[in-house]
Amino acid sequence: PDKDTIPHHLLTCGRVFSGIQPTGVPHLGNYLGALENWVALQNRYPSVLYSIVDLHSITQPQDPTQLRTNILDMAASLLACGVDPERAILFQQSKVSEHAELSWILGCLTSMPRLRHLPQWKMKSKLKNEGSVGLYTYPVLQAADILLYKATHVPVGEDQVQHLELAQDLARIFNNNYGDLFPEPSALLSSTRKVKSLRDPSAKMSKSDPQTMATITVTDPPDDIALKIRRAVTDFTSEVTFDPETRPGVSNLVTIHAAMATISVEEAVSQAGGLDTGAYKKLVTEAVIQRLTPIREEIERLRSERAHLEAVLARGNGRARELAAPVLGEVRQRVGFC
Amino acid sequence: PDKDTIPHHLLTCGRVFSGIQPTGVPHLGNYLGALENWVALQNRYPSVLYSIVDLHSITQPQDPTQLRTNILDMAASLLACGVDPERAILFQQSKVSEHAELSWILGCLTSMPRLRHLPQWKMKSKLKNEGSVGLYTYPVLQAADILLYKATHVPVGEDQVQHLELAQDLARIFNNNYGDLFPEPSALLSSTRKVKSLRDPSAKMSKSDPQTMATITVTDPPDDIALKIRRAVTDFTSEVTFDPETRPGVSNLVTIHAAMATISVEEAVSQAGGLDTGAYKKLVTEAVIQRLTPIREEIERLRSERAHLEAVLARGNGRARELAAPVLGEVRQRVGFC
Repeated sequence: PDKDTIPHHLLTCGRVFSGIQPTGVPHLGNYLGALENWVALQNRYPSVLYSIVDLHSITQPQDPTQLRTNILDMAASLLACGVDPERAILFQQSKVSEHAELSWILGCLTSMPRLRHLPQWKMKSKLKNEGSVGLYTYPVLQAADILLYKATHVPVGEDQVQHLELAQDLARIFNNNYGDLFPEPSALLSSTRKVKSLRDPSAKMSKSDPQTMATITVTDPPDDIALKIRRAVTDFTSEVTFDPETRPGVSNLVTIHAAMATISVEEAVSQAGGLDTGAYKKLVTEAVIQRLTPIREEIERLRSERAHLEAVLARGNGRARELAAPVLGEVRQRVGFC
Repeated sequence: PDKDTIPHHLLTCGRVFSGIQPTGVPHLGNYLGALENWVALQNRYPSVLYSIVDLHSITQPQDPTQLRTNILDMAASLLACGVDPERAILFQQSKVSEHAELSWILGCLTSMPRLRHLPQWKMKSKLKNEGSVGLYTYPVLQAADILLYKATHVPVGEDQVQHLELAQDLARIFNNNYGDLFPEPSALLSSTRKVKSLRDPSAKMSKSDPQTMATITVTDPPDDIALKIRRAVTDFTSEVTFDPETRPGVSNLVTIHAAMATISVEEAVSQAGGLDTGAYKKLVTEAVIQRLTPIREEIERLRSERAHLEAVLARGNGRARELAAPVLGEVRQRVGFC
């Protein structure tokens, strides 16, 4: 990218924090929506932390054996997708006790009504008609995740903007009460490129989709990818055009194609010239397989090296603790604990 | 005490946990309601933990400088009142990171409505017409305090029974989900001896009482004690009787007299025979001064030995951590974090 088009602060300073829940192997939506961006950010910012946020994951019921596997699978996937532990501190949230401690302190600065209308609670508590205390206070822990490292930039999707606002508020409230300590973290709005379900292009592609044909995970073998794309819902027009409003199904394929082949949407549509959707699906399938094959192979390799994965995380956990401990120490001092 | 009159389990096994907020120097109500009992329990149970719960204290706004002083003053007071750091682990809650961590995990097992009717929230949030997330989730942290040490017995006042029930529920829920780990802690209901305000004998004696004449702290000099008792609200009957319902003021003096002189209420009333309330107040004053003088002097001595106090707490913090770490390690393992 041209140096002049990148805002000055992106080149010079700042610290990025982002977290991902250990859902196991990511799907195409995670990869294109967040992880590709993570890889780009680690090359732009001098200090970057990426956390597998297992404390957040237990706000919904988890099977312990599955969770254990999912944490390592997510670590393998992040590495395979290009997260570089030399550039980014990759760590497991629950191994850094300061997250929960700061979350308690920030919770004492958060009023109860402040959380009631945040998306996390409104969405997930409604689904099950009741939520846990952990689910309600989830955004406070998120704020702690960010402030603990004095992060200045946080990549967020649109659905996380309100949660980041809480982190900004809490930075301000803490600074007002106890003197300046935390920078107010800025949102790095990630690209609006959204991958939709292959079975229902009005919905986001989601890990929890009960229809297995709706979601491509980055470890799907080529045959599965081909089958899922062949069955992808489109419409009765055979020509390929990009119009997410009226033709969400075929437009989702164009989005995926462009992203996987790293070409523009226009270029993707132009490559589809003369093809009907059936033939175009083969082109999309090729692009997806070509992009995902090395990632899948790398994940498989890493999965067989459990000790290596654990060592990578252990090193990240240690580095995260080194950053977190003095900040929490300063917080404790200011609050009056020592 | 006669061995046969003490329930068997009190002699043989069990672990006691209790906490007190760092409000500074305790008043007579704290001393007679809780601390005297703490001293008795440390001689009965093989394992006893007493915590200065500073994480709880910040659920209400605190001045940091004052909080810092209050923590050391409370430590000095506990030692002066007879807590023996050779028998009891005396420690500062915020120095053991496992409390906040277990609290997060237990919060994910607690439904939001479960906390809505608990006394802590109902009382304190109403006073200020709104409470913090910390105040709402306070009983979850209390449960973590207890379960973290696998405590079997918890001395509680009547107002804390519902909070202990939450700890019992959470022990059961955790054990059901993840396999037996926590004993269900039992309540040790403390004596019903309640010390009332000297200015309004219908209310509990309380640190936060705006009327300084209402409360005797254990460091009050003899002249202050004499003045406060001389001004204590009684009634228009000069004879001394014990009838808390119809004569709360004079009965409160009898309660204080009996407790401070370690005699029965009957004995106290008999000693008052022939005295009017004015003369009886002098007798009560004498008993209070005699009991509190060595405590006050010891607190003053300890206050001047800040390094010693910090060393006592540091040792207690270390011993608490040694007990807490393997329990939290086991919890993490079972939840699936490792």
